[in-house]
Amino acid sequence: MKTLLQVDFPFNGPFGQEMVEAMKELAESIAREPGLIWKIWTENPETCEAGGIYLFEDDVSARTYLELHTARLKSFGVPVVNAKMFQVNDVLSAIDRGPVA
Amino acid sequence: MKTLLQVDFPFNGPFGQEMVEAMKELAESIAREPGLIWKIWTENPETCEAGGIYLFEDDVSARTYLELHTARLKSFGVPVVNAKMFQVNDVLSAIDRGPVA
Repeated sequence: MKTLLQVDFPFNGPFGQEMVEAMKELAESIAREPGLIWKIWTENPETCEAGGIYLFEDDVSARTYLELHTARLKSFGVPVVNAKMFQVNDVLSAIDRGPVA
Repeated sequence: MKTLLQVDFPFNGPFGQEMVEAMKELAESIAREPGLIWKIWTENPETCEAGGIYLFEDDVSARTYLELHTARLKSFGVPVVNAKMFQVNDVLSAIDRGPVA
């Protein structure tokens, strides 16, 4: 069953184009993670937060990725990682054009 | 600038198909909200949580919707609504097949 992983954390930048330059190789590596359907990269310079919304093929691949990514973020100096895992309600999402099919 | 709205809250159900039946009309109404590009409906019966990931055309439509939706959830008896707004990093999201274009 498809699993949505919601991650956010305190982050002091870089944001925007500088974030692209700093994180491009990481994004290329994440694209190859087993079970990943997609990731949306999120950022908020005003609140000093960043994160990601991920869709995985199943619960196990989401959980495995989250362990890896949490350790990586902590190695970057991120003090706390907020993460929640959800199932997707496909029928309601389809009514609202949600890109999960 | 496109804005991602991340919402979650404590929820005791209904989940799955029963949630579809209870929330179908609400989903149809949300589909018509100004500025909404899409919503993914999220649910987790194990942790007793639900929520949504939304993409809006801009910050103002996301903020307006969040005020409306928070009031609605509270009228349903939801005790607390966790919400965060983010910008989307389009370049990094494109590398990871993120559906934000």
